[in-house]
Order: sequence, then C-alpha cells, then structure tokens
Amino acid sequence: MRGQVELFEPEISGMAAYCLDTTGKRLRPTLVFFSGWQGEGVVSDDLVRAAGVVEMVHLATLVHDDIMDRAEIRRNRRTASREFGPDAAVLLGDALFSQALNVAAQFPTTELCRLVSESTRRVCSGEIMQTLRRRDINITLAEYRRMIDLKTAELFRVSCFIGARLSGAGAGFAQAADRFGHHLGIAYQIYDDLVDFVGEEQRIGKTLGTDLATGKLTLPLMLLLERVPDAERNTIIAALRGGQPLGLAASQQRMQEMGIAAEVVRAIDDELAAATHVLAPHHGQPAVPLLLQLGAMLHAQVSALQVTR
Amino acid sequence: MRGQVELFEPEISGMAAYCLDTTGKRLRPTLVFFSGWQGEGVVSDDLVRAAGVVEMVHLATLVHDDIMDRAEIRRNRRTASREFGPDAAVLLGDALFSQALNVAAQFPTTELCRLVSESTRRVCSGEIMQTLRRRDINITLAEYRRMIDLKTAELFRVSCFIGARLSGAGAGFAQAADRFGHHLGIAYQIYDDLVDFVGEEQRIGKTLGTDLATGKLTLPLMLLLERVPDAERNTIIAALRGGQPLGLAASQQRMQEMGIAAEVVRAIDDELAAATHVLAPHHGQPAVPLLLQLGAMLHAQVSALQVTR
Repeated sequence: MRGQVELFEPEISGMAAYCLDTTGKRLRPTLVFFSGWQGEGVVSDDLVRAAGVVEMVHLATLVHDDIMDRAEIRRNRRTASREFGPDAAVLLGDALFSQALNVAAQFPTTELCRLVSESTRRVCSGEIMQTLRRRDINITLAEYRRMIDLKTAELFRVSCFIGARLSGAGAGFAQAADRFGHHLGIAYQIYDDLVDFVGEEQRIGKTLGTDLATGKLTLPLMLLLERVPDAERNTIIAALRGGQPLGLAASQQRMQEMGIAAEVVRAIDDELAAATHVLAPHHGQPAVPLLLQLGAMLHAQVSALQVTR
Repeated sequence: MRGQVELFEPEISGMAAYCLDTTGKRLRPTLVFFSGWQGEGVVSDDLVRAAGVVEMVHLATLVHDDIMDRAEIRRNRRTASREFGPDAAVLLGDALFSQALNVAAQFPTTELCRLVSESTRRVCSGEIMQTLRRRDINITLAEYRRMIDLKTAELFRVSCFIGARLSGAGAGFAQAADRFGHHLGIAYQIYDDLVDFVGEEQRIGKTLGTDLATGKLTLPLMLLLERVPDAERNTIIAALRGGQPLGLAASQQRMQEMGIAAEVVRAIDDELAAATHVLAPHHGQPAVPLLLQLGAMLHAQVSALQVTR
C-alpha cells in the first residue's frame, strides 16, 4: 500500500498516504493471506496485491463513513474528513476506491475486478440501507441480518474467497472459505454491536454507546426494545429519536440483567460454530488451522466481555 | 444503463435509477460511439457497454459534486443529495462507481478496468485540487490547466481512446483519438468557465455567476484579476473570499470591454484547432468526420456567446 501512494497524482499522494498509513487491525488482508496460505515461505506477490486491494477498499469506505458520522477521531488520529474537510474527503475516498480497482486490474484476468467491484457495490448498498433507516424502530431481524451481511460480512466473505482462489485450491475449498468469511463477518459485526453496549471503553479503545446515540438499531437494541416494559421502551425510543440521551451504564445494566447480552453472545457463537463447521471437510488445507484460529480469537474476545449467562 | 439498474440490490435500485435516468447531454458516451464508429449499422455491444461505463462514472462524480456544491437542482430535478440526503448520496455515488467498474470487468481483458479506474482516480484528484484551492487567488495558469485536464479532459480523453480501441483501429488512430479527446475536453471546460461569466441564463439553462460566488478561480477570472486596476481587483478578491457578492452584469461587462472574453475564446479556439490537427493524418477513419463535427459544434456554441472581439 505504501508503494501505491506513489502512483497517486503528486498533489494528493500525501493525502492518500494519510488514509492508507493507519494502525488498523488489517483484518481483511489477514483473511486474504490466511485463506491463501500454502505453507511457510510461500507468499505470492498476487496474494499481497489482492490483500492490498481489499484493505484499500475498506479504508475508502471508512473515509466516507467518517464523513457521515461526523467522526473527528479514528485510531487516535484525526479522520480524513476532519483533517482535509468533508468535501475533499468524499473525493479522496473515491480516489482510493479507484486506485484499489486499478491494482485489481493489473491481474492477468478480470476476476479480481469483478469480485471486488461487486462486493464494493454490495457494501455501499448495505450502508445506504443503514443510513436511510436510522432511528427507524420497525427494522426486523431479517433486515438487520441483511444489512450486516452486506455492509460487513460481504468484504470478509470476498477476502476469504479471493485468498482461496489465488492459492490455487479447488472450487470446493474456495466455496468453503467464502462461507467461512461470511459467518465470521456476521459474528464480528454482531460482536461489534454488542461491545457498543457492554464493553469497557478503556479496554476497547473507542467511544461506546454511539449506536443508541446515533439511532442505529442493532441486535442488542432490537432485543432490548422487545423485552422491556412499555414505559421503559418509550424512554429508549425517545433517546433513539434524538431526545434525552440514555446513559451507557443504564443500558449496559439492562442488557446484562435481562439476559439480552447472553442471547447476543449465543447468536455470535452460532455464527462462529457455522464458520468452523463449513471448514470441517477441508482439514487437509494448510489455510484451515489459521482460519480456525481467527474464529477462536473472536470467541475469546467475546468471552472477555464477561457477559452474565 | 437501464439494464444495470436491475443489478443493484433491490433496496437501492430505485435510487440508482434516479441517478442514471437523467436528461444530460451524454457527451462522454457520444465520444465513445463516435471514436469507435465503423460505419452505418455497425455498433457492437462492447461499444454500448463501454459508453455506459464511462457515463456511469461521470454520473457518479456528479452525485458527489452536487453534495459538495450543496446543489439542490440539476437539470430541472432535485439532485440525489437533496432527494436522498447527502449521506446516502455519498454512498450512492460509490455504488454507481462500483457498478461501472463491474460492467468494465465483464470485458474479456482487464484493459477497460485499467483505463477507467485510472481515469476515475485522475478525475477525483483534479476535483480534490480544485476543492482545496477554492478562494485561493494565487493559482497559476499552469495549475488551472492541470486541474481542468484532470477533472474534465481526462474522461473526454479516455472515452475517445476506448472507442478507438474497441473499433479495432490501429494504435496510431487510438493515440490520435486520445489527443483529440484531451484537446476537446480542455476546450469544453474553458467554454464552460466562460459561459459562467458571459452566457445568458435563459439560453444556457443554468444559474450563472456561480464560480465567482463559490470562489472557483477559472481562466476568465484569473485574467480579470490580472488586468483590472488595484481598487477593482480588491473588490473582486473580497467577493471571491465570500464577502460582498459581485453582480453578474458588472463582471460580464468587464469581461467584454477588457477583451478578456475574446482572449478566452482564442484559448478555446486554439484547443479546438489542436483537436482538429491531431486527426489530420487519419482522414480515412470513419470516426473522423463525426469527431470533427463535435469540434465544430462546440465552436458554434462559442460563437453564439457573441463575444466582442
């Protein structure tokens, strides 16, 4: 990705570098590398480039997300929107998208371009749905699932599929890696939505309670609304609609004592189990132990939330 | 493009249709068709799809431009930003970009993806430069040229190149078409910048005088600042910096009486002459008469401005 920076027009390469040189978790490139793993010392240039493509697409979406969320800080640094202004950030995100696709177009066939451009469209569609349904309390569980599938699981899925394809593994494993990525992505997003209610800010390293404040209906919140008495429900709805904010401590306590956090954890574990399950027929693949380890790491993170069962 | 609408996620295909179904001039697809012209009745599917790709990229940039310009109306209709909100419009533009690249990736080779993704990045870079330098009176002529080359001429250029490539014409003609598109694009943007000062609103069909109001330094304005006496210069600079606005009538009169409009017309004509010139060695190509006609049309539009010589 540092090499890519040089290919931007000189007038904006510094801005591109600012966006690409982050301290993110690099989860999606990790998925590409792990799914494409063929053993110690065998890391093809193609795998590196494809991992870069996926991460650049992801970083471009973050640049645009931060404009919409009016976010000023991400990972202890000013967001691009805060640093260069929201107008320049819209265009900068576009330039990052374009460059990601340009790298994809350096491959000998159009497959990577097809996969990545379609996934990008799906990610954006998921985010549009979420944006348009802010503060809408009538979202169904199926709609929530669909939104997180598009906005998060899609890029996890395609990362795993691309890695497996590039490793030369057969269609069977590529399909399994694809399904693994999908389930891991769903699990990860539900985990992220739960953390926003029951995490500890210091441990997690970001501001919590933002979904309720910004009117984003997520699984924990949907379950909470379903279960609390009417009066309390009305208070939460008012908070969701931008009225009197609800303290994080209050919602955190309710999530725990009503068993909602435990139910959300079960939903995450179900996805992780499904992710593990699809890899079962492919235990001979060198990629599989690495992918399973990622699932186990997420499981450990969930456990660390100390949800009351 | 109507067919493409069906391929978006059903939840957002109506929004995509809204953006794609415009009454624009369709200049860029015309360039693809004209450059790729092989004679009556020979219009390949590839040419149609490539023209669609270029227009979708252009429409995506308009969706984002209208967010930045806080534009409410474009072509007698609400902008996407006004219709769906700026946040959804950011993502919708992204989805249009992605789908354009996805169509490009359906071609047998990666060439179209490479060309279009690189051009898109360059267009965005040009727009970033322009955005960051709003209200900056120290822009040089070379910088202005560079910005309009990237933000406008780039997509004209690549449209012509793609058309010529798809027609199977040799590298010599593809290169000439490329240069033709570049010069036509520069001429078109300078014309557009001039119209903003000396056009008649009713004839042109859009609000004029917006570049000065939004602090966008263009060739006519740069020349005006160079030539007027100090006191007048300070008034214009104050207007550019967002102070007391300058009446369109006043600047229009000065453009004419100081011979600035005439000089800008000469700059446009020089580009049109260069565009014609590069096609001279290729008069045997069926595309050439059509391309020359486009140049002549722009020349006629410029003449219709009735600039005092």
